[in-house]
Amino acid sequence: MTATTYRQIVLAARPTGEPTSANFELRQVPLPEPGEGQLLLRTIWLSLDPYMRGRMNAAKSYAPPVEVGAVMAGGTITEVMKSNNPKFKPGDILAGWIGWQEYAIADGRGMRKVDPAVAPISTGVGVLGMPGMTAYVGMRNIGKPKAGETVVVAAASGAVGSLVGQIAKIEGCRAVGIAGGPEKCRHVVEDLGFDACVDHRSPTFAADLQAACPQGIDVYFENVGGAVWAAVLPLLNPFARVPVCGLIANYNDAAPPAGPDMSAVMMRAILTNRLTLRGFIVSDFQDQQKEFLEMVGGWLREGRVKYREDVVEGLEKAPEALIGLLKGRNFGKLLVRVGQDP
Amino acid sequence: MTATTYRQIVLAARPTGEPTSANFELRQVPLPEPGEGQLLLRTIWLSLDPYMRGRMNAAKSYAPPVEVGAVMAGGTITEVMKSNNPKFKPGDILAGWIGWQEYAIADGRGMRKVDPAVAPISTGVGVLGMPGMTAYVGMRNIGKPKAGETVVVAAASGAVGSLVGQIAKIEGCRAVGIAGGPEKCRHVVEDLGFDACVDHRSPTFAADLQAACPQGIDVYFENVGGAVWAAVLPLLNPFARVPVCGLIANYNDAAPPAGPDMSAVMMRAILTNRLTLRGFIVSDFQDQQKEFLEMVGGWLREGRVKYREDVVEGLEKAPEALIGLLKGRNFGKLLVRVGQDP
Repeated sequence: MTATTYRQIVLAARPTGEPTSANFELRQVPLPEPGEGQLLLRTIWLSLDPYMRGRMNAAKSYAPPVEVGAVMAGGTITEVMKSNNPKFKPGDILAGWIGWQEYAIADGRGMRKVDPAVAPISTGVGVLGMPGMTAYVGMRNIGKPKAGETVVVAAASGAVGSLVGQIAKIEGCRAVGIAGGPEKCRHVVEDLGFDACVDHRSPTFAADLQAACPQGIDVYFENVGGAVWAAVLPLLNPFARVPVCGLIANYNDAAPPAGPDMSAVMMRAILTNRLTLRGFIVSDFQDQQKEFLEMVGGWLREGRVKYREDVVEGLEKAPEALIGLLKGRNFGKLLVRVGQDP
Repeated sequence: MTATTYRQIVLAARPTGEPTSANFELRQVPLPEPGEGQLLLRTIWLSLDPYMRGRMNAAKSYAPPVEVGAVMAGGTITEVMKSNNPKFKPGDILAGWIGWQEYAIADGRGMRKVDPAVAPISTGVGVLGMPGMTAYVGMRNIGKPKAGETVVVAAASGAVGSLVGQIAKIEGCRAVGIAGGPEKCRHVVEDLGFDACVDHRSPTFAADLQAACPQGIDVYFENVGGAVWAAVLPLLNPFARVPVCGLIANYNDAAPPAGPDMSAVMMRAILTNRLTLRGFIVSDFQDQQKEFLEMVGGWLREGRVKYREDVVEGLEKAPEALIGLLKGRNFGKLLVRVGQDP
């Protein structure tokens, strides 16, 4: 039961500053047949993530930009509908990267089979997918939390931040989250088990953060930048580690913010406190995927790791949802339900 | 033949911005006798180094500030004149930290015997002392140069920078120095063997640096900050390492420089290029001193490492010489000859 046409969302124009709906275009295209060695995939879940804003720019980054007129990139959970590839059979569920579209032809390379018996398949783009692995490899390779230390993470109710803090707790650390608004902060402490969560919208945010970190900060998992980073910097302890994973506060910037130039202050803090700042991309640690799935999969089964999803219904809602994500409007891992479960 | 009084230079007042001679005071004080377990030391060489500017501030840093009225801190090469300590005998030459004074009483802790047969004793505060070890541990633990990579260092004719570049050459890297003026640049290339040296005073500095680094920059040993760092940042390759060792360009700043705020640009570069920035202080790697002395001492004997000294005669000249150092007026390792060789 396959359609003869399907929908996809392409990048219509590059945004300047905040993206708008005019930057996206919904297209209806004919459904192709898979060729030799190929699969026809039907999208069930599309993951929306902050990095997508970067792909909308023409600027050089760690991944090539999405071309204007091309399908928006994105992680997906798909079902194999037809297979001309002996490695896959109809009904297989695959985590992969087919982007913002209801169907796609693919050869299966870079795709990972998801076992629905282990966890809901949506976790394949969440806590057991790229966001979860980002948290895991950033903490394991750069954050290196030691028992008794204080770990701070922003976007603490989000897909990455929520796991960062839960890993910190598993490692015996004090976990302090930063989130937008009392409802998210309550969730971070009561449901996810962080020791504290500070609302970055509060006028007393910097003082609140300091109060929540009486022993200073040993690991700051950086995924927002901007005012949060400015508040964290003076609290970092000697030899603190800062995995730099994302900078959502700056993704819509068309030019550097106004002065004063705080880069000199930052360099001075790096020097005098012997900080380590290290940027990373999850794919730099691809060889740790198996370990990640075993470790976090195990914690998930044991109930030591929890996650929350924020589900948007229908591919056509993806642009609005991504625009909202960049403003912190989502609450939990943001997913678009593109098609029904098998 | 010991005097009955001696001279010392104390911090008279904390500077705001550039220090002046009014921040220092020369005092004449009576010579004490060493007590039980103590030594009387006579200063031969006083090392002047950029970190001293930081010690003149009251602000928190990695080392406590010099108190107003106290003797200025500094590394020294001294001769043991009297000893009530069985570990030392008159005539021993010690590298240590007695500061800006002609004599001192000390118990010998933290002092290292210097063998005049190995190299001129002044190297004990230079290429075989704190500056040399700073270059060595920064490269070994953070810079981690690999053959074929490009290593850039500023203040390349100075005590630390000159060894950084020579280590880079020994490791099979392209070594690019940055220095102030054609005479220093000539020395860096012709005498020290760097592949290139760029004059940071040139109006075309940023373009010159880019031209000198056709393969980009893999290791930037940061000891200056400011405009040099701004020119280096866009040239850093993916996975580049930045040992942050000093920031002489900013030491006299009373407030952060005017905008725009480049810290967001810096964070973006850290993220997208997966840079590692790590601050360090030589004493963090104290356990590598023996290895350092063996390695660099060996290179020195083999003629693979060269050094240049800039000698100022007389303790009374130290304030003016330090003020000049902060403006890049020295040419080579800056030393004050406080007393004659034994």
